[in-house]
Amino acid sequence: MKLIMAVVDDNDSIRVVEELTKKNIGVTRLASTGGFLKRGNTTLLIGLEEDKLKEVLDLLERICKPRKHVVTIFPGVPGETFAPYPVEVTVGGAIVFVLNVERFEKI
Amino acid sequence: MKLIMAVVDDNDSIRVVEELTKKNIGVTRLASTGGFLKRGNTTLLIGLEEDKLKEVLDLLERICKPRKHVVTIFPGVPGETFAPYPVEVTVGGAIVFVLNVERFEKI
Amino acid sequence: MKLIMAVVDDNDSIRVVEELTKKNIGVTRLASTGGFLKRGNTTLLIGLEEDKLKEVLDLLERICKPRKHVVTIFPGVPGETFAPYPVEVTVGGAIVFVLNVERFEKI
Ligand code: NI
Ligand code: NI
Ligand code: NI
Repeated sequence: MKLIMAVVDDNDSIRVVEELTKKNIGVTRLASTGGFLKRGNTTLLIGLEEDKLKEVLDLLERICKPRKHVVTIFPGVPGETFAPYPVEVTVGGAIVFVLNVERFEKI
Repeated sequence: MKLIMAVVDDNDSIRVVEELTKKNIGVTRLASTGGFLKRGNTTLLIGLEEDKLKEVLDLLERICKPRKHVVTIFPGVPGETFAPYPVEVTVGGAIVFVLNVERFEKI
Repeated sequence: MKLIMAVVDDNDSIRVVEELTKKNIGVTRLASTGGFLKRGNTTLLIGLEEDKLKEVLDLLERICKPRKHVVTIFPGVPGETFAPYPVEVTVGGAIVFVLNVERFEKI
């Protein structure tokens, strides 16, 4: 048995939980902030048998892969207007720790 | 030294913390949601010496054992009334990971 | 690779995160309550290479060392006044678990 602690982007965490739940892999979300990822993030606890490890790491990589988004910035102070301009931001990303579980109990 | 990460029902977490504290076993509550247990849950971090492991697992099993509760449902839409009826729900349950601690420091 | 789970005083957590970030050591804050420390506390997840372990434990010990603060208590009920008096309280302290990481992925 292994325990994955994964810090993922808030926006990706919902999809990760959905896909793991479909596969019957238990997952719990811990509220977390700052640090590893610059934006809002969620720490997931994922309990899994060793033979599912590759599948779950691939799932995390597929969903959480960093990608560019274009966001439009509307600058301006009251009474003045400036032209809006696009900014490219990176979203996603994940930090994944795989820990060995010495003993597992489902009560 | 071992670290237990236990995902327990919110309602059981208070009693677990109380009983562990009486035994002088350190425990911290992390806010967690969804996943392993369907209802609201709390993730507990419990630090303990190996020789307390059986005692703590037994405590978790005793307090968190899943059990049936009967809840009365009052159906109805505004202006209409239906007979209330009982529904049996399962509460409790816990997922327990025991991890090895390589080093422990109390500062 | 090691994972430190450290339960620290809320007031110390900001400085710990700042100093670790300056050293390029990843850290995530989990909202936590009660238990190991009597006051509000924060659980930090710190991922680090083994050769940074002493440096990070020293940093935690330096910032989180328990120390006495004098707090002034203003007793009183509406309509009556009592003399304010000083009370010495201990702040800081930390509980630190070092776990082995079997596998680490930065996605
Ligand atoms: Ni059992
Ligand atoms: Ni020391
Ligand atoms: Ni990879």
